[in-house]
Amino acid sequence: MEVNLMSENRAIVAMLRKPREKFWRLRLGELKKLAFAAGYEVLGEVIQIKEAPKAATLFGRGKIEEMTKLMDELKVDTLIVYNVLKSIQKVNLELLTGRRVIDRYDLTLEIFAKNASDAVSKLQIELARIQREIPYVKLLTSLIHIKDRPFIRAGGEYGWKPKIAELRRRMKKLKEEIARYREEKLRQIMERKEKGFKVVCIVGYYNAGKTTLFNALTGCEKPVSDMPFTTLSSKYAKLRGAEKILLVDTIGFVVDLDPRIIKSFEINIDDMRFSDALMLLLDASDPAELFKIKVETSLNILKNVGALVNGKPIVIGLNKVDLVSDRIDIESKKIIAKEIVEKVLKRDPGNIVELSAKERRGLDNLIEKLISVLKV
Amino acid sequence: MEVNLMSENRAIVAMLRKPREKFWRLRLGELKKLAFAAGYEVLGEVIQIKEAPKAATLFGRGKIEEMTKLMDELKVDTLIVYNVLKSIQKVNLELLTGRRVIDRYDLTLEIFAKNASDAVSKLQIELARIQREIPYVKLLTSLIHIKDRPFIRAGGEYGWKPKIAELRRRMKKLKEEIARYREEKLRQIMERKEKGFKVVCIVGYYNAGKTTLFNALTGCEKPVSDMPFTTLSSKYAKLRGAEKILLVDTIGFVVDLDPRIIKSFEINIDDMRFSDALMLLLDASDPAELFKIKVETSLNILKNVGALVNGKPIVIGLNKVDLVSDRIDIESKKIIAKEIVEKVLKRDPGNIVELSAKERRGLDNLIEKLISVLKV
Repeated sequence: MEVNLMSENRAIVAMLRKPREKFWRLRLGELKKLAFAAGYEVLGEVIQIKEAPKAATLFGRGKIEEMTKLMDELKVDTLIVYNVLKSIQKVNLELLTGRRVIDRYDLTLEIFAKNASDAVSKLQIELARIQREIPYVKLLTSLIHIKDRPFIRAGGEYGWKPKIAELRRRMKKLKEEIARYREEKLRQIMERKEKGFKVVCIVGYYNAGKTTLFNALTGCEKPVSDMPFTTLSSKYAKLRGAEKILLVDTIGFVVDLDPRIIKSFEINIDDMRFSDALMLLLDASDPAELFKIKVETSLNILKNVGALVNGKPIVIGLNKVDLVSDRIDIESKKIIAKEIVEKVLKRDPGNIVELSAKERRGLDNLIEKLISVLKV
Repeated sequence: MEVNLMSENRAIVAMLRKPREKFWRLRLGELKKLAFAAGYEVLGEVIQIKEAPKAATLFGRGKIEEMTKLMDELKVDTLIVYNVLKSIQKVNLELLTGRRVIDRYDLTLEIFAKNASDAVSKLQIELARIQREIPYVKLLTSLIHIKDRPFIRAGGEYGWKPKIAELRRRMKKLKEEIARYREEKLRQIMERKEKGFKVVCIVGYYNAGKTTLFNALTGCEKPVSDMPFTTLSSKYAKLRGAEKILLVDTIGFVVDLDPRIIKSFEINIDDMRFSDALMLLLDASDPAELFKIKVETSLNILKNVGALVNGKPIVIGLNKVDLVSDRIDIESKKIIAKEIVEKVLKRDPGNIVELSAKERRGLDNLIEKLISVLKV
């Protein structure tokens, strides 16, 4: 579970999917983007079509042999599995392929670790990794004790001494530290409310243009990239033209984001949770199917974390309209978004604001809309 | 770990203390008060003076025999131990005495369980009990498996089926539910701040008169008692004569309160944590030594839970002056309180307000002081 920073790291991706599963190609594509963002060079893919996974190995034996052969040929040292693995599956796949095996949960954590620059993000990531590591280490040590045979990990020799107790102690300490950071954060949120500020939280998938919009609306110069999780820490800044409105930019969602990862970022979720309005930013240039998945998943995440309660206003922004030449495409995206909001939230989202944060188009409309929903 | 509601429940208390330990008589007295509040009739006490406890049994073998004999004579079925017991000590004491054994942590939880009327208190107590029960049940089942001998608890037969997994599942669910309640609570706190209310949180030991004062200052009629933990849920009400100030009454502290119990009541702690000022209520009729312990412990708890940050104002009220006829006694209590505040908080508490909530004396002074520290 070391952080991988070498861009020359060679990997293949593997996926187990159901016979009639929809959008698997799209999901695998998103996984490859994540792998790239984590610094892997993805050289091949292996897909198994199967109704139910094998309990001990996820994939069938034949498929595992096929992967191993492919990894031998391509001189690949990491197997990235789309499906979230149980510890026993991970251990067995490592034993059978002789490679380091990570799933999409691990991959997300690797990107987080790579991008985390502030203390609280680092603590949250360390906690998420330890929580993930405990059952794995537990299983490894039990295997060692039961079978009493040496076990070599792809990354080197495995430390023999049981370290579960040490991990648990560290976990407890991390939880305490994070709780203290959270209190401090809540105090800051409360202070802003006492001073009469209204907060709009920009939410959406990675690469929707959240930080570009944030910069355009506030005059800040936060670093922007098309990679997932560039923004981990949150920053509050004044919306230009409105003295009492603050904007905050948040961590982006990714396709198939594990709910446990979302929970690991409690402190960031508080920005969404205790804001006065949400600004959901969508990417007009996404293919329709991906666009649909993103709108629906975003709304469900926001509902589940308690960011959309008591009729909190949500403004929908359709960004990157400069990249879409077809007027019908834009209109149909607006209809899709509207329908999904009505289905998931049981309310009318009102007008969906077209904009291009990059070209600074539609920003005045957006500001007007934000001011009107906040009733300031 | 069943809740004990029978007032005829017969018990003895036992304590292990160091040779030169101070105030042990006082602490044992507080334990007896707690036992009474939980519904026990305390018929005897056993004290062992010892530098270090026995790892497996806390007390020495001879002392355990003495206790058992005493409990036989007095027909007592519960042994209440002052010291916080490790699971192994609890199991061994139960085996050796043939009685149900509880420590002061269990005792506190029993009182909580007895007094909890609202949903969130019940959830928090259940979680605290499960967290306490897991290592105990784990130990019991391991004993059963290793030695393969029947094990009978004082309360009846012990269930054989390992129930750790079930407890863990329940624990996870409770944590999630409590987190949701906490979010809702935080939202309410924030709403009050948005509306421009300032909140004063009344804190102090049980039976300091917190609820009596709350009622006197707000015109509410919350139930009052001299038993610990009568107030578990928090209620916000307007301070009379000040439209924008709210008072909230909180759970009382007890001597030797276990930090884990405090942590179990996170949601109640939020009232203290996110208030705009604290009103620490002290009992002028306490003996000087007990008074000192209470002031010092209160301030340390408040500091540790993050309720006294960024120079938050704290007003000290010396209640029950009607019970103290000696003027010198009152003045010396004020000096003690002032000195301890200066030592622990490194700041001047200002004037300490004398009052009698019961006789409604000194209330105008107190209100004036609260308004002045809040700068409303």
